[in-house]
Amino acid sequence: MDYNQLFTEMGIESQKIEAKGAVASYIPELHRVDPWKFGLHLTTIDNKNYGLGDCNEKFSIQSIAKVLILALAFELEDDKLWSRVGVEPSGTPFNSLVQLEYEKGIPRNPFINAGALVICDILVTRLKDPKQEFIDYVRNISGNRSIDYCQETAESEKSAGYKNTALISLMKSYGNIVNDIDVVLDFYFYLCSIEMTCKELSQEFLFLAANGINPLTNSRIVSPIKSKRINSIMQLCGFYDEAGEFSFRVGLPGKSGVGGGIIAIHPGKYSIAVWSPKLNKRGNSYKGMKILEFFTTRAESSIF
Amino acid sequence: MDYNQLFTEMGIESQKIEAKGAVASYIPELHRVDPWKFGLHLTTIDNKNYGLGDCNEKFSIQSIAKVLILALAFELEDDKLWSRVGVEPSGTPFNSLVQLEYEKGIPRNPFINAGALVICDILVTRLKDPKQEFIDYVRNISGNRSIDYCQETAESEKSAGYKNTALISLMKSYGNIVNDIDVVLDFYFYLCSIEMTCKELSQEFLFLAANGINPLTNSRIVSPIKSKRINSIMQLCGFYDEAGEFSFRVGLPGKSGVGGGIIAIHPGKYSIAVWSPKLNKRGNSYKGMKILEFFTTRAESSIF
Amino acid sequence: MDYNQLFTEMGIESQKIEAKGAVASYIPELHRVDPWKFGLHLTTIDNKNYGLGDCNEKFSIQSIAKVLILALAFELEDDKLWSRVGVEPSGTPFNSLVQLEYEKGIPRNPFINAGALVICDILVTRLKDPKQEFIDYVRNISGNRSIDYCQETAESEKSAGYKNTALISLMKSYGNIVNDIDVVLDFYFYLCSIEMTCKELSQEFLFLAANGINPLTNSRIVSPIKSKRINSIMQLCGFYDEAGEFSFRVGLPGKSGVGGGIIAIHPGKYSIAVWSPKLNKRGNSYKGMKILEFFTTRAESSIF
Amino acid sequence: MDYNQLFTEMGIESQKIEAKGAVASYIPELHRVDPWKFGLHLTTIDNKNYGLGDCNEKFSIQSIAKVLILALAFELEDDKLWSRVGVEPSGTPFNSLVQLEYEKGIPRNPFINAGALVICDILVTRLKDPKQEFIDYVRNISGNRSIDYCQETAESEKSAGYKNTALISLMKSYGNIVNDIDVVLDFYFYLCSIEMTCKELSQEFLFLAANGINPLTNSRIVSPIKSKRINSIMQLCGFYDEAGEFSFRVGLPGKSGVGGGIIAIHPGKYSIAVWSPKLNKRGNSYKGMKILEFFTTRAESSIF
Repeated sequence: MDYNQLFTEMGIESQKIEAKGAVASYIPELHRVDPWKFGLHLTTIDNKNYGLGDCNEKFSIQSIAKVLILALAFELEDDKLWSRVGVEPSGTPFNSLVQLEYEKGIPRNPFINAGALVICDILVTRLKDPKQEFIDYVRNISGNRSIDYCQETAESEKSAGYKNTALISLMKSYGNIVNDIDVVLDFYFYLCSIEMTCKELSQEFLFLAANGINPLTNSRIVSPIKSKRINSIMQLCGFYDEAGEFSFRVGLPGKSGVGGGIIAIHPGKYSIAVWSPKLNKRGNSYKGMKILEFFTTRAESSIF
Repeated sequence: MDYNQLFTEMGIESQKIEAKGAVASYIPELHRVDPWKFGLHLTTIDNKNYGLGDCNEKFSIQSIAKVLILALAFELEDDKLWSRVGVEPSGTPFNSLVQLEYEKGIPRNPFINAGALVICDILVTRLKDPKQEFIDYVRNISGNRSIDYCQETAESEKSAGYKNTALISLMKSYGNIVNDIDVVLDFYFYLCSIEMTCKELSQEFLFLAANGINPLTNSRIVSPIKSKRINSIMQLCGFYDEAGEFSFRVGLPGKSGVGGGIIAIHPGKYSIAVWSPKLNKRGNSYKGMKILEFFTTRAESSIF
Repeated sequence: MDYNQLFTEMGIESQKIEAKGAVASYIPELHRVDPWKFGLHLTTIDNKNYGLGDCNEKFSIQSIAKVLILALAFELEDDKLWSRVGVEPSGTPFNSLVQLEYEKGIPRNPFINAGALVICDILVTRLKDPKQEFIDYVRNISGNRSIDYCQETAESEKSAGYKNTALISLMKSYGNIVNDIDVVLDFYFYLCSIEMTCKELSQEFLFLAANGINPLTNSRIVSPIKSKRINSIMQLCGFYDEAGEFSFRVGLPGKSGVGGGIIAIHPGKYSIAVWSPKLNKRGNSYKGMKILEFFTTRAESSIF
Repeated sequence: MDYNQLFTEMGIESQKIEAKGAVASYIPELHRVDPWKFGLHLTTIDNKNYGLGDCNEKFSIQSIAKVLILALAFELEDDKLWSRVGVEPSGTPFNSLVQLEYEKGIPRNPFINAGALVICDILVTRLKDPKQEFIDYVRNISGNRSIDYCQETAESEKSAGYKNTALISLMKSYGNIVNDIDVVLDFYFYLCSIEMTCKELSQEFLFLAANGINPLTNSRIVSPIKSKRINSIMQLCGFYDEAGEFSFRVGLPGKSGVGGGIIAIHPGKYSIAVWSPKLNKRGNSYKGMKILEFFTTRAESSIF
């Protein structure tokens, strides 16, 4: 399909949608980002590319990287993975300890912080040099050597990360963390610091639109069934306490980050990345969700 | 697509899958059902039909009917509906009061009991003779005059329904129930008593596979966008605390009932109904979920 | 001890303490009470009486009556009582359903609404004419025939009582309510409507300061050990989510009501009743707590 | 009063009461204690002493030490203390994170682990050499230089203490911990390792029976009003989720530890310490509670 016409419309529409909410403020690296930035990029599985606004500017993808550690850990562990983390939506704010305690240290899904920490613990066990091997994995997915961590962001996260220390300590008290807490947290904070542009992001995630193969490099990242399952988890758990709202309005599996980025996938068709730093009350990009709703409504593009 | 070959396989497979769990026991009408019953029926949007086992035997569809009251109320109210009920997964067992209290009487979605009671309250306000008008609506959807309530089941539910009284009283204390509690509960218990066969069920729900039009009668039930949104809510909330598991394994939007029935939808393709009365710990048909997982895996049929 | 001197001081002090907060507003009978009313009355076990302000004006004692139904039910049931209700502080607001659900329908103590409803259910089982027999019991305790229900208040409570319907329905679903819900609720709303003056209240509760015997009538109401245990439950559970604060500041067992009344007991010495209708955020009389703190501090009167 | 006769009876009774439950097993130092140990010691405010069984054998007083850090911090901070920790019973198991999160990092009282950690944080701020100064404080209270930490126990606690790390991290994320987490935890684990005999324990706590003055040394430890308030907090919060039960059955303020010790106070009369290592399901000494109930019932000794 040719999205040129629609992207012209979206260029106009995107100027009408006011970016409401507030930029994340818990670390300076996120807080000082220009709140009015806006980028959008779509890549089809036959490698047609459509961009808008600041789509070639790097930003902190934050929790979107949780999908990539899941992809790697799922490949390494297969279904053993699910003894340590669930696949159910959380129904509570994203870093709540309540549910974790109720569930005896087994996080409900891999996209809440607790779940991502368990995935990190698995990768720390599995990989010799987790940070290096993981960034190589990320680069190889889209054949893009420019993708990297932002050390400054990672270090800032560390000094603000007491709630994550609480989460991982609680899980360790239940026996669901194997490695040293500080090592796992270090890896976690680094992966949250990865930076990409909207274009890079949409190309990075194209494998989930193509049954696990990245069409740009023709390399298999995950099996077809794992690709479907990762999409399913995104659909149900990708937007913290707002997964239903995103699914209801946008109709695609997706994942957000507090940097203001969102990736969404139409299996068999395309991946689309958007960036607008101001977040709504539930921690998701306000304008990002709006423009994606506009896009899928106009394109009549939905998995439902 | 021709599913004949696959249904032959499924006939064999279905005999291998042991029905684990237990038949619902809180009312005699459900408890006395033969636990080994098993039926399956698929209807494509071009009206090809594939059946297996006891697919022409009536059973109590129970909570599956919640999708139909939602469809009717959504048509009548449009987006006003969402001021009184949410679209987020519940993350807790299906009739929990905890979350309802925390959320000040606004149920998280229309498929938990509290949410369905709000939908009933809306229909009691909107319809002159709710029970009669609703069953007419259900019959018209698939052009099937044999569909009816089971009065015996409805009356039994009433005498066991104190938790629903608690839910509706709590919501009334928050102002989210307008009508008399007993009138709303009466309607609720009747709609849960509706009986269909697997074949009737798959034909009843075909409109959600066809953008809101039932291809069998060519009548529009809901608009395309409402059809998508109902599917989205089923995907995220259709299986109580097990929505993630169903989505992960089966990969389709669906809805279960404590009678052991499940309906699932592949938008653009088909609807499929299964019935096996024995429930797993989370209140969903054990064998029903297994056979649907087998089917979508073999057919490589998933929205993801 | 002679409290004349101290009551003179308290007369002055009571004019300095501003009554902050708000009068209960959920029913007109409570809402229309003059917010500036203030009464105080102390009765020693040797029947010395000290009064202040509006201490001879009737007001709605509300939840304070829960102590009296407990006394009667405890006499009738002995320790069997504790299989249906606990003796632990609730740690949550007074009519929360959360904890009740978590505890499978066994209320944490007899002074939260759920617990009082269970006590009512017991009395409805035990008494032929619960309302008449209970008011006779109350009158006999202090030999005061003028004590009565306020029918107007009771009927108003009924029409505002959906949260209590929710509580009792939930308990019935767990099997912890034996009788018809409406009958138990009717009794509950009537007992909450009892009216007394501060003087009547302090004389009514004097038996808990005297090991279970009312020194005014010389009649035994409960055994010494039951008297101690009722005091213990008041100490830990008498002020909803503020029991610790009352115990910390006042240092006596006591019980409050949303009518603005408080009764407190110094075992072996006296009972003291106060009335000031404006409530703090936790539903207890603001000025009532302040003046009792002043009194026990000055009198150096505390069980600790 | 002369308790000789009663202690003879209690010697017989104590052999009849079976020690049910299980010794704490989370660290070897507690687990290897002889489960059949039993000691009891009462000291009156005029220094009469009554002992039974293993009352001169040291054991780990564990959480009982939380009363002593509270006494010291309360002296140092006065009522400023209560901006950082509450005085309400917790209503949930003793190390639950749920309530702490709900209350935004302010623990409900100083005797749940979270509350004790806040008190430790205050002492780490206030004292130059917290461990040394605190043990000196403890020794001075009863003039007993033999009281000391058990380093082995403290170090074991550290390696098992991930839930405490979770608690303190969560509070730090809310800004209610000022100092370095590891420093505060180190102090906390040491104070929990203090060892005393029953006799030492009853003499150590005698100041709370005597309005804040230790009659043995004639030195003031806390003011009379602080003594009363500490007793009040013990009464409402001293036994985790079983405070109501202890108050109901024993009728005195008290505090338990997982080492199997309990201290109880009768203001104006005596302090009494008991030790029996086997704990009931709620973490309190089974036999210890039983023998104290027997004692206060026989002695008709209760604050109520």
